[in-house]
Amino acid sequence: MVQAGIVGFRGYSGAELFQILQAHPQVTPWKLEHRSDAAADPLPRGGNADRSTAATPEAAREAGLDVVFLATPHEVSMQVAPAMLAAGIRVVDLSGAYRLRTPEVHLRWYGDAHEDPELLASAVYGLPEFYRDRIRGARFVSNPGCYPTAASLALRPLVAAGLIDRSVPVLCDAKSGISGAGRKASLKTSFCEAGDNFSVYAAFAHRHVPEVLQNCELQETEFHFVAQLLPTHRGILENIYARLAPEVTAETIQKCYDEAYLEEPFVQVYDRGILPDLHTVQHTNRCAIGFQVAEATSTLLVVSAIDNLVKGAAGQAVQNMNLMFGFDETEGLR
Amino acid sequence: MVQAGIVGFRGYSGAELFQILQAHPQVTPWKLEHRSDAAADPLPRGGNADRSTAATPEAAREAGLDVVFLATPHEVSMQVAPAMLAAGIRVVDLSGAYRLRTPEVHLRWYGDAHEDPELLASAVYGLPEFYRDRIRGARFVSNPGCYPTAASLALRPLVAAGLIDRSVPVLCDAKSGISGAGRKASLKTSFCEAGDNFSVYAAFAHRHVPEVLQNCELQETEFHFVAQLLPTHRGILENIYARLAPEVTAETIQKCYDEAYLEEPFVQVYDRGILPDLHTVQHTNRCAIGFQVAEATSTLLVVSAIDNLVKGAAGQAVQNMNLMFGFDETEGLR
Amino acid sequence: MVQAGIVGFRGYSGAELFQILQAHPQVTPWKLEHRSDAAADPLPRGGNADRSTAATPEAAREAGLDVVFLATPHEVSMQVAPAMLAAGIRVVDLSGAYRLRTPEVHLRWYGDAHEDPELLASAVYGLPEFYRDRIRGARFVSNPGCYPTAASLALRPLVAAGLIDRSVPVLCDAKSGISGAGRKASLKTSFCEAGDNFSVYAAFAHRHVPEVLQNCELQETEFHFVAQLLPTHRGILENIYARLAPEVTAETIQKCYDEAYLEEPFVQVYDRGILPDLHTVQHTNRCAIGFQVAEATSTLLVVSAIDNLVKGAAGQAVQNMNLMFGFDETEGLR
Amino acid sequence: MVQAGIVGFRGYSGAELFQILQAHPQVTPWKLEHRSDAAADPLPRGGNADRSTAATPEAAREAGLDVVFLATPHEVSMQVAPAMLAAGIRVVDLSGAYRLRTPEVHLRWYGDAHEDPELLASAVYGLPEFYRDRIRGARFVSNPGCYPTAASLALRPLVAAGLIDRSVPVLCDAKSGISGAGRKASLKTSFCEAGDNFSVYAAFAHRHVPEVLQNCELQETEFHFVAQLLPTHRGILENIYARLAPEVTAETIQKCYDEAYLEEPFVQVYDRGILPDLHTVQHTNRCAIGFQVAEATSTLLVVSAIDNLVKGAAGQAVQNMNLMFGFDETEGLR
Repeated sequence: MVQAGIVGFRGYSGAELFQILQAHPQVTPWKLEHRSDAAADPLPRGGNADRSTAATPEAAREAGLDVVFLATPHEVSMQVAPAMLAAGIRVVDLSGAYRLRTPEVHLRWYGDAHEDPELLASAVYGLPEFYRDRIRGARFVSNPGCYPTAASLALRPLVAAGLIDRSVPVLCDAKSGISGAGRKASLKTSFCEAGDNFSVYAAFAHRHVPEVLQNCELQETEFHFVAQLLPTHRGILENIYARLAPEVTAETIQKCYDEAYLEEPFVQVYDRGILPDLHTVQHTNRCAIGFQVAEATSTLLVVSAIDNLVKGAAGQAVQNMNLMFGFDETEGLR
Repeated sequence: MVQAGIVGFRGYSGAELFQILQAHPQVTPWKLEHRSDAAADPLPRGGNADRSTAATPEAAREAGLDVVFLATPHEVSMQVAPAMLAAGIRVVDLSGAYRLRTPEVHLRWYGDAHEDPELLASAVYGLPEFYRDRIRGARFVSNPGCYPTAASLALRPLVAAGLIDRSVPVLCDAKSGISGAGRKASLKTSFCEAGDNFSVYAAFAHRHVPEVLQNCELQETEFHFVAQLLPTHRGILENIYARLAPEVTAETIQKCYDEAYLEEPFVQVYDRGILPDLHTVQHTNRCAIGFQVAEATSTLLVVSAIDNLVKGAAGQAVQNMNLMFGFDETEGLR
Repeated sequence: MVQAGIVGFRGYSGAELFQILQAHPQVTPWKLEHRSDAAADPLPRGGNADRSTAATPEAAREAGLDVVFLATPHEVSMQVAPAMLAAGIRVVDLSGAYRLRTPEVHLRWYGDAHEDPELLASAVYGLPEFYRDRIRGARFVSNPGCYPTAASLALRPLVAAGLIDRSVPVLCDAKSGISGAGRKASLKTSFCEAGDNFSVYAAFAHRHVPEVLQNCELQETEFHFVAQLLPTHRGILENIYARLAPEVTAETIQKCYDEAYLEEPFVQVYDRGILPDLHTVQHTNRCAIGFQVAEATSTLLVVSAIDNLVKGAAGQAVQNMNLMFGFDETEGLR
Repeated sequence: MVQAGIVGFRGYSGAELFQILQAHPQVTPWKLEHRSDAAADPLPRGGNADRSTAATPEAAREAGLDVVFLATPHEVSMQVAPAMLAAGIRVVDLSGAYRLRTPEVHLRWYGDAHEDPELLASAVYGLPEFYRDRIRGARFVSNPGCYPTAASLALRPLVAAGLIDRSVPVLCDAKSGISGAGRKASLKTSFCEAGDNFSVYAAFAHRHVPEVLQNCELQETEFHFVAQLLPTHRGILENIYARLAPEVTAETIQKCYDEAYLEEPFVQVYDRGILPDLHTVQHTNRCAIGFQVAEATSTLLVVSAIDNLVKGAAGQAVQNMNLMFGFDETEGLR
C-alpha cells in the first residue's frame, strides 16, 4: 500500500482528495496537520480514526509516507514541497506554485519572485492527456489549475492541428462553482451574496491564463479569458469561441477531437450540437466536450465541462499519482 | 417629510429598511456612518446620491433627523440609542438590546449585565398587533426579533383564550433563511457550507425564547424552541406543535384566529389544512398562519411564516414608525 | 384611474406585472381569465378580492378596461390582441407575436406564417430608451424580449457611433435565470435538473436574435448569440464581446455610454472595469452596463444585466404603459 | 459476478443504484427497459455501452439475471415483482408495494386493495439494522421508505428500551430534499416554485407513517409525522420530539444508542448536543443520529439524517442485496 499524506485536508480539494484516496485500493491516506490550516473542521464522533501526523518531513518519514499531496495556498506549497522532496518523498502540488515554466512568467502573473527557480524548472506539469510520459515515474508533479484543465483539453488539439484562425483572439467565457474560491470565511462567497447571483471577476486578467498559453502554445494576444462565479457548489463550464481556419468545417473539428481523445478514459467528446451541462461531470473525473459551428461566419463554440474539485483538482492529482506509481491510470477514479 | 436615519444600512436588515423608506411617500432616508460598520459596500457609480452623515447625535441633529433606526449589533445599539434619545431624536432599535423586560432576564439570555436598566424599562416592544396603543406616540421602540414575531403571532391568541393544554410544552420547530445570520464573512454561512444543506442550531437555547414567553405569558417550561438554518436567502417558517385543551376543536382554533386577526392588515389566516410556504410571504410585511389538527390526539400544528427581513425586521420597524408618527400603519408597506 | 387587465396573470411575468400595477398610484389591475391559462394557481384565503373578469373583448369593455396586457404565449396573443384592439382597448403584448418587423423575418425565426401582417406592421416596438416618441400615445405596443433588451441597450449606442469593428462578429454569451422559461411543469426546469447545474441551449439559434439585429441595425452574420440556463430564479447577465474599431479606446466607450444614457432613469452605466452582478438589478427595472477592454487586442467586453421579469418583461411593459397614457415614465417603477 | 437488473434506471433512485452497482466489485448492472418509464434520458455519446434488455421475465432469464431491483411506482412493482420471482429471479423492490404487513394496513394508507396478499405476507422488510437475519438468503426484499428509515433507526431502540413516555405522542418534523418527489415534470417541484422556498405537505397523513409504526411497535396515536420540502437536491433530516420516561436522562439515551449501534457500519451516533447536518450524510449510506435534552421538562430532541437516495433508497437496496447474496454487507457502499 502506498502511504499518501495530504496537507490541507480541510479544504474542499483536500477533503475530496481524502475521500478518493480512502476508496483507492492501493493507497492509505494520511491527514497532515499544518499550522497554516486553521479552518475549523467539523469532527463528529467517529471521524477521528483517520491516520494523521504533522506536515513535517520528519513526521512524514516516520510515518513511512511515499507521497505527499499539497492542497495548500501557493505560499505554503513553496515551503513544504522542497522539504518533502529533500526527505525523499514524492510530491503532487495542487497549488499554482510550480505550474508556470519560468520565473519570469510566474512573476508576471503571481506578482512575486519565485523562490526556487531550479525546482520550478524540474516540476512536471500534471495534465496526463498531454504529458503522460513525463508524469510516469516523476518525483514532483505540479497539478494543473481547474480552469486551464478544461480550456486546454478543449483547445490544444484544435490549435495543434491548425484548425483555428489565430488572427482573431480565442475567447474563453468561463463559469465556476463557488468551491473554486476555496474553503474560507468571505463575504463574497457567502450564501446571501453568491447565492441566486452571478458575477464576473478577473476579466482579461486571471492568473490561470498563462497555463493555457503554455499548454496550447498560444501567445497572450491570442487568448482572452473571463472568469465568472456560478451559484453552484462545484463544476466548471467554459464556452470557448474561435474563428475556424479556412476550409475547416464541423466535420474537421469532430474528427480532430475524436482522434485526440478516443483512447482517453477521462475525456468524453460529444457529437456536434450536443453540449454538456454541469450535471454530467459533477462528482466525476471526466472532461466533457461538445461543440457547435455557425457556418456563415466560421465561428466555433466549444463547451468544455469538468468538476473543478475532481478533474480540476483532486481527481487529476490521483490520476497523476497513479501514473507516478505505475498503477492503472483510472484506479480509484471510476 | 420625516427625516429618518439608518445606522447599519450595509447589513441585510438595514439595506431592506433603506429600500422601504426610499419608496415611503412621507420619509426621506439617510445613511448614518458608524465606525463599527466596516463591511465593504458595493457602491457602483450613481449610488452615491443618497443622503448620508455620521451616526452621532450632533450630526443627526444638524441633519434635522426626526428618527433613527438602529440595524446594529446589540452592543452598538446600547451606545447609540441613549445618545440619540438624549438629543431629542426618536429611536427604533432593531437589535436585541432593549427587548426583554428586566435586566435579570436580559442577563440570563444575553450573558451580559444590562448597562441601562432605566432605558430598558421605558422601551416599548414594537409588535403592533399586540401593543399598538403603546407604540403610538412612543419615542423609543424596540423592534421584535424575527423568530419571536412569527411565534408570538401564532401562539398568543390561542394561549390567551385558553385553547392550549399547558401541561405539555409547546414545541416550536423553526427554520430561517440565511440572511437571518447577518451580513458578515463566516464559514458557516458560506455558499458551500450552508447551500444544499440544512442544520439545527441553538436547540432549546436560543436567545429569542424569552421574547415569546413575554408576549404569550408562558413559563420557560411551557415552550421549547429549536432553530434551523434553511438554504434560502430570506424567510422564516415555524411549525408549532401543541396539545389542545379539552373540548377544543379545529373550529375553535379557526374562530380564535379569525377574531384575533380579521382587522389586521399584515396577518393572514388560512382555512384549516391550508398551510403557507415561504414564497407567499417573501418580500412582504405579512405573517401567514395556517393550521392542522390531528383529532385522535388533540395535537395541533400551526405553521407561521414571515419574511425575516421584512415583518421580522425592516418592515415591522417601518410599521412601528408609521404608528409613532401618526401615519397610516400600512404606508410604504403594501 | 386607468383600468388595466392582465391575461396570463398566473405566469411569472404576469404575476410580476400584477404586483407592480397594484402599487401603481394611477392604475387598477384586473385579472383576465383565459381558457388557455390552466396552470393551477395557489389561492390562499383572502387573495380572492382581486378584480377579475373574462379575457374577452365584451367582458373587457363591460369592465371599462383602458388597456390589456398579454403575458401569454405568442399564439394566444395573436388571437387576443386584434380582438381587444378592435374593441377600442389598448394593448401591450409581452409575447413575441408582434416583435419582428416583417412576416418574412417572423416566419424565418418563429417557423409559422404570421396571421396578421397588417397588425404586425402597425405594432410599436416598446423599448423606450430607443423608441420613446413612437410609444407615446401608441395604441398597440409590442414589449421586447428579455435577452434583446439587455443586448440592445448594451450594443446599439456603440454600433450607431461606429465604435465596433463589424468585420468580426459580435458574440453575446447570455445567461438567464430559470423563470425565463415560464411557469410550467417541465423536467428540464425542475429543481433537481436545473438546480446546481448550468447548461447551454439554442446555441447560435435563439429566436430573440432578430430583435437585436433590428434594434442595432446589424446583419445576421455580425451577431452571434448563445443562451444559457442559470440556477437562479430571475436575472439575465450577458457578456458581449466585440472588436473595437481602429482608434477606439476605453475612454471612447465610456463617453459614448455616458452620453447615451445620462438622462435615462433605468439605465445605469458603470465606470470602466466595474462590472454589474445580478443582485444589483434583481427586483428593479434597471439595466446595468459595465465594460472592460483588453487593449493589446482591442477586445471589448460589455456586461449587461437586467431582471428578466422586470426590465425584461413586466417592468418595461409598465414603463411603456406610462408613456402610452402620458404618466411619468418611472411611475410605479422606482 | 452477480447479474443485477434495474427497472426504473432513469429515476433518481434508479440512477443512483446503477452508479453504485457499477462500482460494486461483484456485480454487473443491467438497465431494464419498461414501457412505463417514459421520462427522457439524456444519453450523451458513449453512454450506450451499458448492458440493457427488456424488463420482462423472459429477457431477464435470457440475460442470466440473478436479481432485479424495482425502482418503480408501486403499481408497476406489483406487476413486475411476482413475474420476476416466478421466473426464479430474486427481487428487491424499492417501492411501497410490499412494505406493509397486512392488506388492511395497505388499503388504509395507500387507498387500494392489495392485489397479492400472499406475496405481501412473504416479503422481507429490508431494514438490515433490525431484520438482518431474515434478509440473509431472502428471495424477495421490500426496501424501506426514506422517511421511515431515518425515523425508525432513531426511535426503535428508545421505544424498545422503554425510554419514551408513550402517553405523549412522539412528533416527527421531517424535511426532505426535492429528489424525494421523484424524477418527473411537475410545477410543484420546478426550480422556480421549490427553490428558495420551504413548504409543509401531508401533515399528519403521510403514507410512510405505518412503516414507522411497524418498525417501532407504536400505535397510530403514539406517533405524528409532518413532511416538508427542502430546497436541496438530496437529504432527509428529521427532528423527533418525545417526552422521556421517568428517571431517563441524557446519559440513558446515549448509552442506549451506543449499545444499539456500536457495531453497525452505517449508523453513526454523535455525542449529546452534537447534531448532524445534511452535508455529513449526503452521498453516503450512513444514518447520523444526534440528540439533545431539555431537562426541566424531560423533552428529548433526536436529529436523524440520511441521504434519501442512498440509505433511504439505492444504498440500502445494495446493503440488502449484499446480505441476500452473502457478500460483505458494506461492499460497494464505503
